[in-house]
Amino acid sequence: MSNDGAWIHDVATGPAAKVVEKHREPQELIFYSGWFCPYVQRTWIALEEKGIPYQYKEVNPYKKEKHFLEINPKGLVPAIEYKGKALYESLILCEFLEDAYPSYGPNLLTTDPYAKAYIRIWLDFISKTIVPTNLRLTMAQDPAKQKEYLQEYNEALRTLMGKAKGPYFLGEEFSLVDVAIAPWILRDYVLSENRGYSREGVSPEWKAYCELLEKRPSVANTFSEKKYLQPIYNRYLSDTAQSAGAQALRAGKAIP
Amino acid sequence: MSNDGAWIHDVATGPAAKVVEKHREPQELIFYSGWFCPYVQRTWIALEEKGIPYQYKEVNPYKKEKHFLEINPKGLVPAIEYKGKALYESLILCEFLEDAYPSYGPNLLTTDPYAKAYIRIWLDFISKTIVPTNLRLTMAQDPAKQKEYLQEYNEALRTLMGKAKGPYFLGEEFSLVDVAIAPWILRDYVLSENRGYSREGVSPEWKAYCELLEKRPSVANTFSEKKYLQPIYNRYLSDTAQSAGAQALRAGKAIP
Ligand SMILES: N[C@@H](CCC(=O)N[C@@H](CS)C(=O)NCC(=O)O)C(=O)O
Ligand SMILES: N[C@@H](CCC(=O)N[C@@H](CS)C(=O)NCC(=O)O)C(=O)O
Repeated sequence: MSNDGAWIHDVATGPAAKVVEKHREPQELIFYSGWFCPYVQRTWIALEEKGIPYQYKEVNPYKKEKHFLEINPKGLVPAIEYKGKALYESLILCEFLEDAYPSYGPNLLTTDPYAKAYIRIWLDFISKTIVPTNLRLTMAQDPAKQKEYLQEYNEALRTLMGKAKGPYFLGEEFSLVDVAIAPWILRDYVLSENRGYSREGVSPEWKAYCELLEKRPSVANTFSEKKYLQPIYNRYLSDTAQSAGAQALRAGKAIP
Repeated sequence: MSNDGAWIHDVATGPAAKVVEKHREPQELIFYSGWFCPYVQRTWIALEEKGIPYQYKEVNPYKKEKHFLEINPKGLVPAIEYKGKALYESLILCEFLEDAYPSYGPNLLTTDPYAKAYIRIWLDFISKTIVPTNLRLTMAQDPAKQKEYLQEYNEALRTLMGKAKGPYFLGEEFSLVDVAIAPWILRDYVLSENRGYSREGVSPEWKAYCELLEKRPSVANTFSEKKYLQPIYNRYLSDTAQSAGAQALRAGKAIP
Protein backbone atom coordinates (compact mmCIF):
# COMPACT_ATOMS: atom_id res chain seq x y z
CA MET A 1 0.00 0.00 0.00
CA SER A 2 1.24 3.40 -0.88
CA ASN A 3 2.58 5.70 1.78
CA ASP A 4 2.10 8.98 -0.06
CA GLY A 5 -1.05 9.88 1.81
CA ALA A 6 -2.91 10.56 -1.43
CA TRP A 7 -5.88 8.66 0.01
CA ILE A 8 -6.19 11.16 2.91
CA HIS A 9 -8.87 13.79 2.51
CA ASP A 10 -7.07 17.08 2.06
CA VAL A 11 -8.93 19.51 4.30
CA ALA A 12 -10.67 19.67 7.65
CA THR A 13 -14.44 19.15 7.52
CA GLY A 14 -17.42 19.54 9.88
CA PRO A 15 -16.88 21.74 12.95
CA ALA A 16 -13.11 21.89 12.39
CA ALA A 17 -13.58 23.44 8.93
CA LYS A 18 -15.28 26.45 10.56
CA VAL A 19 -12.38 26.98 12.94
CA VAL A 20 -9.92 26.71 10.05
CA GLU A 21 -11.85 29.42 8.17
CA LYS A 22 -11.30 31.82 11.07
CA HIS A 23 -7.54 31.27 11.00
CA ARG A 24 -6.49 32.03 7.45
CA GLU A 25 -4.78 35.37 8.15
CA PRO A 26 -1.00 35.56 8.59
CA GLN A 27 0.10 35.61 12.25
CA GLU A 28 3.42 35.41 14.03
CA LEU A 29 2.47 31.83 14.97
CA ILE A 30 1.85 29.41 12.08
CA PHE A 31 0.21 26.13 13.04
CA TYR A 32 1.09 23.19 10.75
CA SER A 33 -1.76 20.78 11.17
CA GLY A 34 -3.11 17.56 9.76
CA TRP A 35 -6.87 17.72 10.41
CA PHE A 36 -7.06 13.98 11.15
CA CYS A 37 -4.21 13.69 13.64
CA PRO A 38 -4.86 13.19 17.37
CA TYR A 39 -1.47 14.67 18.30
CA VAL A 40 -2.27 17.75 16.22
CA GLN A 41 -5.57 18.07 18.00
CA ARG A 42 -3.82 18.41 21.37
CA THR A 43 -1.99 21.52 20.22
CA TRP A 44 -5.08 22.78 18.46
CA ILE A 45 -7.18 22.43 21.62
CA ALA A 46 -4.55 24.36 23.59
CA LEU A 47 -4.49 27.15 20.97
CA GLU A 48 -8.28 27.42 21.09
CA GLU A 49 -8.52 27.23 24.89
CA LYS A 50 -6.04 30.05 25.25
CA GLY A 51 -7.36 32.16 22.38
CA ILE A 52 -3.90 32.59 20.87
CA PRO A 53 -3.83 34.16 17.39
CA TYR A 54 -2.54 31.62 14.87
CA GLN A 55 -2.54 30.94 11.16
CA TYR A 56 -3.75 27.45 10.24
CA LYS A 57 -1.88 25.58 7.52
CA GLU A 58 -2.92 22.10 6.41
CA VAL A 59 -0.06 19.66 5.79
CA ASN A 60 -0.22 16.06 4.62
CA PRO A 61 2.71 14.69 6.63
CA TYR A 62 2.83 11.49 4.58
CA LYS A 63 3.91 13.45 1.53
CA LYS A 64 7.15 14.47 3.28
CA GLU A 65 7.29 17.68 1.29
CA LYS A 66 10.59 19.49 1.37
CA HIS A 67 9.21 22.73 2.79
CA PHE A 68 7.69 20.82 5.71
CA LEU A 69 10.80 18.74 6.42
CA GLU A 70 12.59 22.06 6.90
CA ILE A 71 10.11 22.85 9.69
CA ASN A 72 10.13 19.37 11.25
CA PRO A 73 12.93 17.05 10.08
CA LYS A 74 10.90 14.14 11.51
CA GLY A 75 8.18 15.02 9.03
CA LEU A 76 5.44 14.77 11.64
CA VAL A 77 2.52 17.05 12.42
CA PRO A 78 1.88 19.04 14.56
CA ALA A 79 4.58 21.66 14.13
CA ILE A 80 4.64 25.41 14.47
CA GLU A 81 6.64 28.34 13.23
CA TYR A 82 6.93 31.10 15.80
CA LYS A 83 8.51 34.34 14.64
CA GLY A 84 10.17 32.31 11.89
CA LYS A 85 11.56 29.57 14.15
CA ALA A 86 10.29 25.99 14.06
CA LEU A 87 9.14 23.70 16.87
CA TYR A 88 7.33 20.35 17.01
CA GLU A 89 6.05 17.54 19.28
CA SER A 90 2.46 18.01 20.44
CA LEU A 91 3.00 18.24 24.20
CA ILE A 92 6.16 20.31 23.88
CA LEU A 93 4.13 22.72 21.75
CA CYS A 94 1.40 22.88 24.42
CA GLU A 95 4.01 23.71 27.08
CA PHE A 96 5.53 26.27 24.73
CA LEU A 97 2.20 28.03 24.36
CA GLU A 98 2.07 28.45 28.16
CA ASP A 99 5.61 29.80 28.25
CA ALA A 100 5.29 32.12 25.26
CA TYR A 101 1.75 33.42 25.89
CA PRO A 102 1.50 33.65 29.69
CA SER A 103 -1.22 36.29 29.59
CA TYR A 104 -3.53 34.38 27.23
CA GLY A 105 -6.42 32.23 28.48
CA PRO A 106 -6.25 29.71 31.30
CA ASN A 107 -2.91 28.22 32.37
CA LEU A 108 -3.27 24.56 31.38
CA LEU A 109 -0.22 23.59 33.48
CA THR A 110 -1.13 25.55 36.64
CA THR A 111 1.40 27.88 38.26
CA ASP A 112 2.25 25.60 41.19
CA PRO A 113 5.57 23.72 40.79
CA TYR A 114 4.30 20.56 42.46
CA ALA A 115 1.07 20.49 40.42
CA LYS A 116 3.06 21.07 37.23
CA ALA A 117 5.28 18.07 37.95
CA TYR A 118 2.22 16.01 38.86
CA ILE A 119 0.60 16.93 35.52
CA ARG A 120 3.80 15.98 33.69
CA ILE A 121 3.86 12.56 35.40
CA TRP A 122 0.43 11.82 34.01
CA LEU A 123 1.29 13.22 30.58
CA ASP A 124 4.19 10.79 30.63
CA PHE A 125 1.82 7.95 31.49
CA ILE A 126 -0.49 8.88 28.62
CA SER A 127 2.48 9.04 26.20
CA LYS A 128 4.25 5.90 27.33
CA THR A 129 1.31 3.65 28.19
CA ILE A 130 -2.13 4.80 27.05
CA VAL A 131 -1.37 5.95 23.50
CA PRO A 132 0.90 3.02 22.52
CA THR A 133 -1.55 0.50 23.99
CA ASN A 134 -4.37 2.11 22.02
CA LEU A 135 -2.32 1.81 18.82
CA ARG A 136 -1.27 -1.76 19.58
CA LEU A 137 -4.90 -2.72 20.17
CA THR A 138 -6.04 -1.04 16.97
CA MET A 139 -3.39 -2.82 14.90
CA ALA A 140 -3.66 -6.28 16.50
CA GLN A 141 -5.01 -9.01 14.21
CA ASP A 142 -4.85 -12.09 16.45
CA PRO A 143 -8.02 -12.33 18.61
CA ALA A 144 -6.00 -13.49 21.65
CA LYS A 145 -3.73 -10.45 21.34
CA GLN A 146 -6.73 -8.18 20.87
CA LYS A 147 -8.16 -9.49 24.11
CA GLU A 148 -4.89 -9.05 25.95
CA TYR A 149 -4.35 -5.49 24.69
CA LEU A 150 -7.97 -4.54 25.41
CA GLN A 151 -7.45 -5.58 29.00
CA GLU A 152 -4.21 -3.62 29.16
CA TYR A 153 -5.92 -0.59 27.66
CA ASN A 154 -8.81 -0.73 30.10
CA GLU A 155 -6.36 -1.15 32.98
CA ALA A 156 -4.34 1.87 31.88
CA LEU A 157 -7.47 4.02 31.63
CA ARG A 158 -8.56 2.86 35.08
CA THR A 159 -5.15 3.81 36.46
CA LEU A 160 -5.62 7.30 35.05
CA MET A 161 -9.17 7.53 36.37
CA GLY A 162 -7.97 6.34 39.77
CA LYS A 163 -6.11 9.66 40.01
CA ALA A 164 -8.82 11.88 38.50
CA LYS A 165 -10.55 14.19 40.97
CA GLY A 166 -13.49 14.85 38.63
CA PRO A 167 -15.11 16.30 36.74
CA TYR A 168 -11.74 17.00 35.07
CA PHE A 169 -8.51 15.23 35.90
CA LEU A 170 -7.34 17.89 38.35
CA GLY A 171 -10.82 18.76 39.60
CA GLU A 172 -12.79 21.80 38.46
CA GLU A 173 -9.88 23.04 36.38
CA PHE A 174 -9.36 21.86 32.79
CA SER A 175 -5.66 21.01 32.37
CA LEU A 176 -3.11 19.64 29.95
CA VAL A 177 -3.87 16.08 31.12
CA ASP A 178 -7.40 16.49 29.74
CA VAL A 179 -6.02 18.03 26.54
CA ALA A 180 -3.57 15.15 26.07
CA ILE A 181 -6.16 12.38 26.28
CA ALA A 182 -9.20 14.08 24.66
CA PRO A 183 -8.31 13.27 21.00
CA TRP A 184 -8.25 9.55 21.78
CA ILE A 185 -11.64 9.82 23.44
CA LEU A 186 -13.20 11.36 20.32
CA ARG A 187 -11.77 8.50 18.27
CA ASP A 188 -12.64 5.64 20.62
CA TYR A 189 -15.67 4.59 18.51
CA VAL A 190 -13.09 2.87 16.28
CA LEU A 191 -12.24 0.50 19.14
CA SER A 192 -15.91 0.09 20.12
CA GLU A 193 -16.87 -0.91 16.59
CA ASN A 194 -13.91 -3.17 15.96
CA ARG A 195 -12.20 -4.32 19.15
CA GLY A 196 -14.91 -4.91 21.75
CA TYR A 197 -14.01 -1.79 23.74
CA SER A 198 -16.69 0.14 25.60
CA ARG A 199 -16.53 3.16 27.86
CA GLU A 200 -18.72 1.41 30.44
CA GLY A 201 -16.35 -1.54 30.26
CA VAL A 202 -13.64 0.71 31.66
CA SER A 203 -15.69 2.31 34.44
CA PRO A 204 -18.69 4.59 34.97
CA GLU A 205 -16.25 7.40 35.90
CA TRP A 206 -14.44 7.01 32.61
CA LYS A 207 -17.71 7.13 30.68
CA ALA A 208 -18.74 10.34 32.43
CA TYR A 209 -15.30 11.85 31.87
CA CYS A 210 -15.42 10.99 28.14
CA GLU A 211 -18.86 12.54 27.76
CA LEU A 212 -17.72 15.71 29.47
CA LEU A 213 -14.56 16.06 27.40
CA GLU A 214 -16.11 15.40 24.00
CA LYS A 215 -18.66 18.16 24.59
CA ARG A 216 -16.08 20.80 25.48
CA PRO A 217 -16.05 23.39 22.66
CA SER A 218 -12.27 23.42 22.13
CA VAL A 219 -12.43 19.64 21.73
CA ALA A 220 -15.61 19.28 19.68
CA ASN A 221 -14.74 22.18 17.37
CA THR A 222 -11.34 20.84 16.37
CA PHE A 223 -12.75 17.51 15.14
CA SER A 224 -13.72 16.68 11.57
CA GLU A 225 -16.36 14.39 10.09
CA LYS A 226 -15.81 10.77 10.99
CA LYS A 227 -16.39 9.46 7.48
CA TYR A 228 -13.10 11.00 6.35
CA LEU A 229 -11.23 9.22 9.14
CA GLN A 230 -12.47 5.84 7.96
CA PRO A 231 -9.85 5.15 5.25
CA ILE A 232 -7.11 6.07 7.73
CA TYR A 233 -8.37 3.77 10.46
CA ASN A 234 -9.01 0.97 7.99
CA ARG A 235 -5.28 0.82 7.39
CA TYR A 236 -4.54 0.59 11.11
CA LEU A 237 -7.30 -1.95 11.69
CA SER A 238 -5.97 -4.20 8.93
CA ASP A 239 -2.38 -3.62 10.05
CA THR A 240 -1.36 -2.14 6.73
CA ALA A 241 -0.68 1.41 7.96
CA GLN A 242 2.78 2.68 7.00
CA SER A 243 2.94 5.67 9.34
CA ALA A 244 6.06 6.24 11.42
CA GLY A 245 4.06 5.21 14.50
CA ALA A 246 2.80 1.96 12.97
CA GLN A 247 6.27 1.05 11.74
CA ALA A 248 7.88 1.77 15.10
CA LEU A 249 5.33 -0.36 16.92
CA ARG A 250 5.92 -3.30 14.56
CA ALA A 251 9.66 -2.95 15.10
CA GLY A 252 9.18 -3.03 18.88
CA LYS A 253 10.38 0.56 19.26
CA ALA A 254 9.01 3.59 21.05
CA ILE A 255 6.51 5.42 18.84
CA PRO A 256 7.99 8.71 17.59
CA MET B 1 18.06 -15.24 38.03
CA SER B 2 16.68 -13.52 41.03
CA ASN B 3 15.21 -10.06 40.74
CA ASP B 4 15.55 -9.00 44.35
CA GLY B 5 18.62 -6.89 43.76
CA ALA B 6 20.48 -8.56 46.60
CA TRP B 7 23.55 -8.71 44.34
CA ILE B 8 23.65 -4.91 44.04
CA HIS B 9 26.17 -3.15 46.26
CA ASP B 10 24.19 -1.26 48.85
CA VAL B 11 25.86 2.14 49.03
CA ALA B 12 27.52 4.74 46.82
CA THR B 13 31.32 4.51 46.62
CA GLY B 14 34.19 6.62 45.32
CA PRO B 15 33.47 10.32 44.68
CA ALA B 16 29.71 9.80 45.10
CA ALA B 17 30.17 8.49 48.65
CA LYS B 18 31.64 11.85 49.66
CA VAL B 19 28.66 13.75 48.29
CA VAL B 20 26.29 11.36 50.09
CA GLU B 21 28.11 12.06 53.38
CA LYS B 22 27.33 15.77 53.01
CA HIS B 23 23.61 15.11 52.59
CA ARG B 24 22.61 13.07 55.61
CA GLU B 25 20.68 15.79 57.45
CA PRO B 26 16.89 16.02 57.15
CA GLN B 27 15.69 18.58 54.58
CA GLU B 28 12.35 19.49 53.08
CA LEU B 29 13.49 17.69 49.91
CA ILE B 30 14.33 13.98 50.27
CA PHE B 31 16.13 12.45 47.30
CA TYR B 32 15.48 8.71 46.84
CA SER B 33 18.46 7.47 44.91
CA GLY B 34 20.03 4.29 43.66
CA TRP B 35 23.76 5.08 43.40
CA PHE B 36 24.16 2.97 40.23
CA CYS B 37 21.26 4.35 38.21
CA PRO B 38 21.86 6.68 35.23
CA TYR B 39 18.37 8.19 35.54
CA VAL B 40 19.04 8.93 39.21
CA GLN B 41 22.27 10.62 38.25
CA ARG B 42 20.42 13.13 36.06
CA THR B 43 18.43 14.40 39.02
CA TRP B 44 21.48 14.24 41.23
CA ILE B 45 23.53 16.35 38.81
CA ALA B 46 20.73 18.94 38.72
CA LEU B 47 20.57 19.05 42.54
CA GLU B 48 24.33 19.55 42.74
CA GLU B 49 24.49 22.12 39.94
CA LYS B 50 21.83 24.22 41.60
CA GLY B 51 23.10 23.76 45.16
CA ILE B 52 19.66 22.80 46.45
CA PRO B 53 19.58 21.43 50.02
CA TYR B 54 18.51 17.79 49.96
CA GLN B 55 18.64 14.68 52.12
CA TYR B 56 20.09 11.63 50.33
CA LYS B 57 18.39 8.28 50.88
CA GLU B 58 19.66 5.12 49.23
CA VAL B 59 16.97 2.78 47.87
CA ASN B 60 17.39 -0.57 46.17
CA PRO B 61 14.48 -0.29 43.71
CA TYR B 62 14.59 -4.01 42.89
CA LYS B 63 13.45 -4.84 46.40
CA LYS B 64 10.11 -3.07 45.81
CA GLU B 65 9.85 -2.23 49.47
CA LYS B 66 6.45 -1.09 50.62
CA HIS B 67 7.61 2.27 51.92
CA PHE B 68 9.16 3.07 48.56
CA LEU B 69 6.16 1.93 46.52
CA GLU B 70 4.16 4.50 48.47
CA ILE B 71 6.52 7.16 47.12
CA ASN B 72 6.67 5.83 43.56
CA PRO B 73 4.05 3.20 42.67
CA LYS B 74 6.20 2.29 39.65
CA GLY B 75 8.94 1.32 42.11
CA LEU B 76 11.62 3.15 40.16
CA VAL B 77 14.39 5.49 41.28
CA PRO B 78 14.86 8.43 41.19
CA ALA B 79 12.01 9.80 43.28
CA ILE B 80 11.72 12.69 45.70
CA GLU B 81 9.57 13.76 48.59
CA TYR B 82 9.05 17.50 48.72
CA LYS B 83 7.32 18.88 51.78
CA GLY B 84 5.84 15.42 52.26
CA LYS B 85 4.58 14.99 48.68
CA ALA B 86 6.05 12.47 46.26
CA LEU B 87 7.26 12.91 42.68
CA TYR B 88 9.27 10.76 40.25
CA GLU B 89 10.66 10.48 36.69
CA SER B 90 14.17 11.85 36.30
CA LEU B 91 13.55 14.62 33.78
CA ILE B 92 10.28 15.67 35.39
CA LEU B 93 12.22 15.98 38.65
CA CYS B 94 14.85 18.14 36.94
CA GLU B 95 12.15 20.44 35.60
CA PHE B 96 10.52 20.50 39.03
CA LEU B 97 13.77 21.68 40.61
CA GLU B 98 13.77 24.66 38.22
CA ASP B 99 10.15 25.47 39.02
CA ALA B 100 10.41 25.01 42.79
CA TYR B 101 13.86 26.58 43.33
CA PRO B 102 13.99 29.45 40.83
CA SER B 103 16.55 31.40 42.84
CA TYR B 104 19.03 28.51 43.20
CA GLY B 105 22.00 28.06 40.89
CA PRO B 106 21.93 28.29 37.09
CA ASN B 107 18.66 27.79 35.21
CA LEU B 108 19.24 24.53 33.33
CA LEU B 109 16.22 25.14 31.08
CA THR B 110 16.93 28.82 30.28
CA THR B 111 14.23 31.47 30.72
CA ASP B 112 13.45 31.88 27.02
CA PRO B 113 10.25 30.08 25.88
CA TYR B 114 11.66 29.11 22.51
CA ALA B 115 14.93 27.81 23.97
CA LYS B 116 12.99 25.83 26.58
CA ALA B 117 10.94 24.09 23.90
CA TYR B 118 14.10 23.47 21.88
CA ILE B 119 15.73 21.86 24.93
CA ARG B 120 12.64 19.70 25.46
CA ILE B 121 12.74 18.50 21.84
CA TRP B 122 16.26 17.20 22.39
CA LEU B 123 15.39 15.70 25.78
CA ASP B 124 12.63 13.85 23.96
CA PHE B 125 15.15 12.61 21.39
CA ILE B 126 17.45 11.37 24.14
CA SER B 127 14.55 9.59 25.89
CA LYS B 128 12.94 8.07 22.82
CA THR B 129 15.99 7.27 20.71
CA ILE B 130 19.38 7.46 22.40
CA VAL B 131 18.64 5.73 25.71
CA PRO B 132 16.57 2.83 24.27
CA THR B 133 19.13 2.24 21.51
CA ASN B 134 21.90 2.15 24.11
CA LEU B 135 19.96 -0.46 26.11
CA ARG B 136 19.08 -2.48 23.01
CA LEU B 137 22.75 -2.54 22.00
CA THR B 138 23.86 -3.54 25.49
CA MET B 139 21.38 -6.43 25.63
CA ALA B 140 21.83 -7.71 22.05
CA GLN B 141 23.40 -11.18 21.76
CA ASP B 142 23.34 -11.77 18.01
CA PRO B 143 26.47 -10.22 16.38
CA ALA B 144 24.48 -9.02 13.36
CA LYS B 145 22.03 -7.23 15.68
CA GLN B 146 24.90 -5.78 17.69
CA LYS B 147 26.33 -4.32 14.50
CA GLU B 148 22.97 -2.91 13.44
CA TYR B 149 22.27 -1.33 16.83
CA LEU B 150 25.79 0.08 17.10
CA GLN B 151 25.26 1.86 13.79
CA GLU B 152 21.90 3.15 15.00
CA TYR B 153 23.46 4.33 18.24
CA ASN B 154 26.31 6.13 16.48
CA GLU B 155 23.81 7.72 14.09
CA ALA B 156 21.65 8.95 16.97
CA LEU B 157 24.65 10.48 18.73
CA ARG B 158 25.71 12.17 15.50
CA THR B 159 22.23 13.61 15.12
CA LEU B 160 22.52 15.10 18.61
CA MET B 161 26.01 16.42 17.91
CA GLY B 162 24.80 17.91 14.64
CA LYS B 163 22.75 20.31 16.78
CA ALA B 164 25.37 20.96 19.48
CA LYS B 165 26.88 24.45 19.41
CA GLY B 166 29.85 23.43 21.58
CA PRO B 167 31.44 23.21 24.01
CA TYR B 168 28.05 22.30 25.59
CA PHE B 169 24.90 21.46 23.67
CA LEU B 170 23.53 25.00 23.81
CA GLY B 171 26.93 26.71 23.62
CA GLU B 172 28.75 28.16 26.62
CA GLU B 173 25.82 27.39 28.89
CA PHE B 174 25.46 23.97 30.58
CA SER B 175 21.82 22.86 30.19
CA LEU B 176 19.42 20.03 30.86
CA VAL B 177 20.36 18.40 27.55
CA ASP B 178 23.89 17.92 28.89
CA VAL B 179 22.49 16.65 32.21
CA ALA B 180 20.24 14.16 30.44
CA ILE B 181 22.99 12.51 28.40
CA ALA B 182 25.95 12.73 30.83
CA PRO B 183 25.20 9.52 32.81
CA TRP B 184 25.35 7.45 29.63
CA ILE B 185 28.66 9.02 28.72
CA LEU B 186 30.19 7.98 32.05
CA ARG B 187 28.98 4.44 31.44
CA ASP B 188 29.97 4.13 27.78
CA TYR B 189 33.09 2.09 28.60
CA VAL B 190 30.70 -0.87 28.90
CA LEU B 191 29.92 -0.56 25.19
CA SER B 192 33.57 0.06 24.30
CA GLU B 193 34.68 -3.08 26.09
CA ASN B 194 31.85 -5.30 24.86
CA ARG B 195 30.14 -3.95 21.77
CA GLY B 196 32.82 -2.36 19.58
CA TYR B 197 31.70 1.19 20.36
CA SER B 198 34.21 4.03 20.47
CA ARG B 199 33.81 7.74 21.00
CA GLU B 200 36.05 8.47 17.99
CA GLY B 201 33.86 6.12 15.97
CA VAL B 202 30.99 8.54 16.51
CA SER B 203 32.87 11.76 15.73
CA PRO B 204 35.72 13.92 17.04
CA GLU B 205 33.08 16.41 18.32
CA TRP B 206 31.38 13.69 20.30
CA LYS B 207 34.70 12.61 21.84
CA ALA B 208 35.50 16.18 22.90
CA TYR B 209 31.99 16.63 24.30
CA CYS B 210 32.26 13.39 26.32
CA GLU B 211 35.60 14.42 27.76
CA LEU B 212 34.24 17.80 28.77
CA LEU B 213 31.11 16.40 30.41
CA GLU B 214 32.78 13.61 32.36
CA LYS B 215 35.14 16.13 33.97
CA ARG B 216 32.40 18.48 35.14
CA PRO B 217 32.30 18.31 38.97
CA SER B 218 28.53 17.71 39.28
CA VAL B 219 28.92 14.79 36.88
CA ALA B 220 32.17 13.27 38.16
CA ASN B 221 31.18 13.64 41.83
CA THR B 222 27.90 11.77 41.50
CA PHE B 223 29.53 8.65 40.04
CA SER B 224 30.63 5.58 42.02
CA GLU B 225 33.44 3.09 41.50
CA LYS B 226 33.08 1.15 38.28
CA LYS B 227 33.81 -2.23 39.87
CA TYR B 228 30.48 -2.16 41.67
CA LEU B 229 28.64 -1.53 38.41
CA GLN B 230 30.10 -4.69 36.87
CA PRO B 231 27.58 -7.24 38.22
CA ILE B 232 24.73 -5.02 37.06
CA TYR B 233 26.09 -4.62 33.54
CA ASN B 234 26.94 -8.32 33.32
CA ARG B 235 23.23 -9.06 33.54
CA TYR B 236 22.42 -6.62 30.74
CA LEU B 237 25.30 -7.84 28.59
CA SER B 238 24.19 -11.47 28.93
CA ASP B 239 20.54 -10.47 28.44
CA THR B 240 19.50 -11.84 31.83
CA ALA B 241 18.60 -8.52 33.46
CA GLN B 242 15.10 -8.49 34.95
CA SER B 243 14.70 -4.74 35.43
CA ALA B 244 11.51 -3.05 34.27
CA GLY B 245 13.50 -1.48 31.43
CA ALA B 246 14.98 -4.78 30.24
CA GLN B 247 11.60 -6.50 30.38
CA ALA B 248 9.86 -3.70 28.47
CA LEU B 249 12.50 -3.77 25.76
CA ARG B 250 12.14 -7.53 25.32
CA ALA B 251 8.36 -7.15 25.08
CA GLY B 252 8.77 -4.49 22.37
CA LYS B 253 7.36 -1.77 24.61
CA ALA B 254 8.51 1.72 25.52
CA ILE B 255 10.94 1.59 28.43
CA PRO B 256 9.29 2.91 31.60
N1 LIG C 1 5.04 12.40 19.11
C1 LIG C 1 4.49 13.18 18.02
C2 LIG C 1 3.69 12.29 17.09
C3 LIG C 1 3.14 13.01 15.87
C4 LIG C 1 2.66 12.03 14.78
O1 LIG C 1 2.95 10.83 14.83
N2 LIG C 1 1.91 12.57 13.79
C5 LIG C 1 1.48 11.74 12.66
C6 LIG C 1 0.06 12.01 12.22
S1 LIG C 1 -1.12 11.57 13.46
C7 LIG C 1 2.35 12.03 11.46
O2 LIG C 1 2.71 13.18 11.20
N3 LIG C 1 2.68 11.00 10.69
C8 LIG C 1 3.46 11.09 9.50
C9 LIG C 1 4.21 9.81 9.27
O3 LIG C 1 3.99 8.86 10.04
O4 LIG C 1 5.00 9.75 8.34
C10 LIG C 1 3.67 14.29 18.64
O5 LIG C 1 3.18 14.10 19.76
O6 LIG C 1 3.55 15.37 18.02
N1 LIG D 1 11.99 6.76 33.23
C1 LIG D 1 12.51 6.58 34.57
C2 LIG D 1 13.39 5.34 34.62
C3 LIG D 1 13.93 5.03 36.00
C4 LIG D 1 14.50 3.59 36.10
O1 LIG D 1 14.24 2.76 35.20
N2 LIG D 1 15.24 3.31 37.20
C5 LIG D 1 15.75 1.96 37.41
C6 LIG D 1 17.15 1.92 37.96
S1 LIG D 1 18.31 2.55 36.78
C7 LIG D 1 14.88 1.27 38.46
O2 LIG D 1 14.47 1.87 39.43
N3 LIG D 1 14.63 -0.02 38.25
C8 LIG D 1 13.88 -0.85 39.14
C9 LIG D 1 13.22 -1.96 38.39
O3 LIG D 1 13.45 -2.07 37.16
O4 LIG D 1 12.43 -2.69 38.97
C10 LIG D 1 13.26 7.85 34.95
O5 LIG D 1 13.73 8.53 34.02
O6 LIG D 1 13.34 8.18 36.14
